[in-house]
Amino acid sequence: MRHLLSTKELSRDDAIALLDVAEDMAAVQEREMKKLPTLRGRTVVNLFFEDSTRTRISFEAAAKRLSADVINFSAKGSSVSKGESLKDTAQTLQAMGADGVVIRHHASGAPQTLAMSGWIDAGVVNAGDGTHEHPTQALLDAFTIRRRLHGATSRGRGLDGVHVVIVGDILHSRVARSNVWLLTTLGATVELVAPPTLLPVDTTAWPARVGYDLDASLAGGPDVVMMLRIQAERMHAAFFPNSREYARTWGLDDARFDRLPPTTMVMHPGPMNRGLEIAARAADSPQSTVREQVANGVSVRMAALYLLLSGERGDAA
Amino acid sequence: MRHLLSTKELSRDDAIALLDVAEDMAAVQEREMKKLPTLRGRTVVNLFFEDSTRTRISFEAAAKRLSADVINFSAKGSSVSKGESLKDTAQTLQAMGADGVVIRHHASGAPQTLAMSGWIDAGVVNAGDGTHEHPTQALLDAFTIRRRLHGATSRGRGLDGVHVVIVGDILHSRVARSNVWLLTTLGATVELVAPPTLLPVDTTAWPARVGYDLDASLAGGPDVVMMLRIQAERMHAAFFPNSREYARTWGLDDARFDRLPPTTMVMHPGPMNRGLEIAARAADSPQSTVREQVANGVSVRMAALYLLLSGERGDAA
Amino acid sequence: MRHLLSTKELSRDDAIALLDVAEDMAAVQEREMKKLPTLRGRTVVNLFFEDSTRTRISFEAAAKRLSADVINFSAKGSSVSKGESLKDTAQTLQAMGADGVVIRHHASGAPQTLAMSGWIDAGVVNAGDGTHEHPTQALLDAFTIRRRLHGATSRGRGLDGVHVVIVGDILHSRVARSNVWLLTTLGATVELVAPPTLLPVDTTAWPARVGYDLDASLAGGPDVVMMLRIQAERMHAAFFPNSREYARTWGLDDARFDRLPPTTMVMHPGPMNRGLEIAARAADSPQSTVREQVANGVSVRMAALYLLLSGERGDAA
Repeated sequence: MRHLLSTKELSRDDAIALLDVAEDMAAVQEREMKKLPTLRGRTVVNLFFEDSTRTRISFEAAAKRLSADVINFSAKGSSVSKGESLKDTAQTLQAMGADGVVIRHHASGAPQTLAMSGWIDAGVVNAGDGTHEHPTQALLDAFTIRRRLHGATSRGRGLDGVHVVIVGDILHSRVARSNVWLLTTLGATVELVAPPTLLPVDTTAWPARVGYDLDASLAGGPDVVMMLRIQAERMHAAFFPNSREYARTWGLDDARFDRLPPTTMVMHPGPMNRGLEIAARAADSPQSTVREQVANGVSVRMAALYLLLSGERGDAA
Repeated sequence: MRHLLSTKELSRDDAIALLDVAEDMAAVQEREMKKLPTLRGRTVVNLFFEDSTRTRISFEAAAKRLSADVINFSAKGSSVSKGESLKDTAQTLQAMGADGVVIRHHASGAPQTLAMSGWIDAGVVNAGDGTHEHPTQALLDAFTIRRRLHGATSRGRGLDGVHVVIVGDILHSRVARSNVWLLTTLGATVELVAPPTLLPVDTTAWPARVGYDLDASLAGGPDVVMMLRIQAERMHAAFFPNSREYARTWGLDDARFDRLPPTTMVMHPGPMNRGLEIAARAADSPQSTVREQVANGVSVRMAALYLLLSGERGDAA
Repeated sequence: MRHLLSTKELSRDDAIALLDVAEDMAAVQEREMKKLPTLRGRTVVNLFFEDSTRTRISFEAAAKRLSADVINFSAKGSSVSKGESLKDTAQTLQAMGADGVVIRHHASGAPQTLAMSGWIDAGVVNAGDGTHEHPTQALLDAFTIRRRLHGATSRGRGLDGVHVVIVGDILHSRVARSNVWLLTTLGATVELVAPPTLLPVDTTAWPARVGYDLDASLAGGPDVVMMLRIQAERMHAAFFPNSREYARTWGLDDARFDRLPPTTMVMHPGPMNRGLEIAARAADSPQSTVREQVANGVSVRMAALYLLLSGERGDAA
């Protein structure tokens, strides 16, 4: 792999290969000494045009456990915010010898631009671009589902026949987009459930069903319910008078959670609004994978950095 | 030791043991090569909900000299400031495999909550919580006093019979609180001298005398005078018309400094307001321990991280 | 070398010695594994009183490739911004065991003060002070010119007979000042071309010619044209009605670039205002050294840190 920009173009074989490497990384994490010498002498730059402490420290931990040097480049307050172009920033990182660039950007497509421009030799990892994609989040979600379902026999497997319901603000969610593509590539069926005002207009082109009744969608007992974070300003823009109203219609509240089979996983990309899109009881139940998702995030990011930066790099995107 | 949350519960034996390890760390610092491999592969997270560059870099230097990986997590601008709960932050750090968490928080008791919650396996070090405690500051102060008094024969000793006068804004000072408990545990006698408006109401429960006349308290020639930082807004709230008036009544000015015996140590946790609570001459005299305090801070923090994070951890708080 | 504070006092021999070490560092960079163990156990503090992400990460990359520990100390939000003196900050860094301090400060002379005060044993590198000097920028510029002219036979050479034209806001440019001194010490002739309002009054004391007609200065086909960044507010203060007018009179636009001989190097310290002081075509042409300058910056800073921090340090400034 040369870059990790989106899950839309990721083949099933490449996705499974990455998840399998992540299994190896998870095994390393579970041992007492967590560090591998694999990327010693390599430099990973966290190029963050948007604040995201959680994602940044997950990539930072991943890179450091592979013994890479990490340089944090927050675009706030830098010449970037004074109008420096992405091109000049890229050429600066290239000239400084960056081997990997983890980029988060408010503009959809910025990581693609960076990777395809020829400005830079570094491997580029998309850590979230606009409302477009957040591929490592989808990969850690897929990894988490696969591990819960298959445990020690996960390697080599996809998610064939798995039924996933994604609920909430699909419109603004790069997490939902990346998951739709990756999960279906791996064989899962995906259903999106959201208020009509928070659904994109182009979902007919997505390999996913769409529903407008959360209770109906949950009635079949899906394998996975993934709740998305709702932001207050978007809730209001979607004509919800208040958060209680939103929670009543679209939240995984106690009543809905109690009706789920005990085998249904409850996922959330974090940070959660407890009591809004997800009730505390659901969030903290054994069915919740929230903590595993965070832990698996480090393993999946180690796998991505390893595949992009170690040894000779090929040229498949 | 499992966590380092306060000095109030620290036993004399545990405190002396930590100071003795800090002596070993100081010896390492004084050699040319300052790095020990002890915590290689461990991850220390600096979780700072309040800015404090000095304390943060002291812990960062301490952790790096033990070869730990350090991740700085400033809560400003992160999802924490968007209302994420301490619980969710803790679970994130837990899932990412943090071995140690150094926490500074504006709320008294937050480090205790973090350590006792079961949310996290990491050793927790309180780097200052509200107006409650700042235990590593007190430990470095005790270390500094012991070293000045006993030099190479410090190991194993307490501070029996040492007379310490702490002066200034006791009310808001976590440094004063931590020192009262630790120094008396180690056998010292502590006297607090402050304007009545800057004294807590509950000092009768503290193992310390209280005075309201700085000159009287200094007349006996104490072994240690510890001047606290006064903040302008609190000086005004305490009815001082201006800083000259405060300095005249409660500052270690030249006249007061000249009346002290040459054996009295002058301490300050920094950063100093020269000319306000402490005159420049006192601050820069050979009696001043200000620079030793900073240097000893790294040694004491190395000792704390070493005791919390190396080898098997016990469960004494 | 003990400190690197300015190029004005740098001797020809010392400058060439540093450029030669930078050649060794560049050779290391060009190999696959970029890390040297030279400064393992040393601590470099980036003490930045002004934001400068580009310069900070260049020094951070340089220090990490020499295996030093790096601590970033941004003065914003720290006690420094609350009025702590440079002296107290210095003594803090000293006490924490800093071996090298890279300082950027808005006040001209601050690095000199820090180095000469006796407050600190660390080697001090000036990373830009007010409108005074930015010596590593000049050294990387000289390195870049020498390498373009002499390639593999650069070692031991100066820049004798090289003709350099520096164009733009000389008045506020520490880059221009450092280059005037260094390039002439190395044997080059320097010509400054600027609007009269953006020229310092004391240039008669500088070893450089002054011109007020860019086309005349470029007519002779200089070896190097170095374009300086112009800031909008200074352009306006210099009575330019708009940026098009500035670009027409003082910019390296397409027409001027086309008239240059193909051997003339086009330099810029970055970040560039494309279309203002430099046209995109000039910036991206093979004659442009902009990317080499950034890459060479890491090598030159590795050389400076190596000379200041490895082995025994002498006491030549």
